[in-house]
Amino acid sequence: MISRAVEELMLENKSSMIIPAENVANVMSGNPLEHAFLVLSKAGYSKIPVLDKGDHFVGLLSLNDVVNKMLEIDGIDTTNLSEFSVADVMDTDVAIVREGCELEDLLHLLVDAPFLPVLDEHNIFKGIVTRREILKAVNRTFHELDKKRVPTEKLVFPAGLAK
Amino acid sequence: MISRAVEELMLENKSSMIIPAENVANVMSGNPLEHAFLVLSKAGYSKIPVLDKGDHFVGLLSLNDVVNKMLEIDGIDTTNLSEFSVADVMDTDVAIVREGCELEDLLHLLVDAPFLPVLDEHNIFKGIVTRREILKAVNRTFHELDKKRVPTEKLVFPAGLAK
Repeated sequence: MISRAVEELMLENKSSMIIPAENVANVMSGNPLEHAFLVLSKAGYSKIPVLDKGDHFVGLLSLNDVVNKMLEIDGIDTTNLSEFSVADVMDTDVAIVREGCELEDLLHLLVDAPFLPVLDEHNIFKGIVTRREILKAVNRTFHELDKKRVPTEKLVFPAGLAK
Repeated sequence: MISRAVEELMLENKSSMIIPAENVANVMSGNPLEHAFLVLSKAGYSKIPVLDKGDHFVGLLSLNDVVNKMLEIDGIDTTNLSEFSVADVMDTDVAIVREGCELEDLLHLLVDAPFLPVLDEHNIFKGIVTRREILKAVNRTFHELDKKRVPTEKLVFPAGLAK
């Protein structure tokens, strides 16, 4: 559990925690890998969401997924990039969150994912929550806890619970 | 400032916060990009530390840095990978931390970097601190704060400071 006090501090700037879909680069599942390679390398991202034509979230594609298709026994070969599509190599085993999910779930899932796709109830891609935005909120929360001058001893060993 | 109480909780598993150098893939600054490309794609990392022959940290290399050397006006060309070295494309403008640095500095620097190289006083690479390990500590800290049943009202509005 996370105490209500900490949760309130963490969610003070809740609206800035989700990076909205329109600000997140994406690729279509039907795109050839060559196109995805260009998007990823030019945008400077290492992993981006994959959408279908109806803006439904269908997976994640990393630059590593793409370049692994270029590794041949005798060296690097880029011909595969025009022969395979994003759907052939994307990762579909991905943790996602729904709009309005619990902070606690977010924090746990972000241990194993640098960002989490946020979907509505129809699996429409709404944006991402990143470790970066959560860390900003953590910094603010720790500082607020200190600014409010919570007595240290009480915070760690409240009366009756002291070791 | 971060209160001593929160800092103590965050640093309870301090030893596991740094991933030691021997468990972190790296490349040498003199390596051809082709070698670095293979290391990055096979290891599945998007960014790794670059060391010199004396194990000094000299920069970071991302898979994006490498593949950007493959982008030519008329398409993708891999010949540059054997002509350029890691030192030619690595990022040397990198935030680093020293062994024994302050938690507060770590938390701030990790807002803009997915991980931080940890160096000793001679710039020898000792390991990395990642957002992932910090988030684990944050989860533990939030839960301990709750487990110790700090009264919510007191935590946010201690006596004398209530709005």
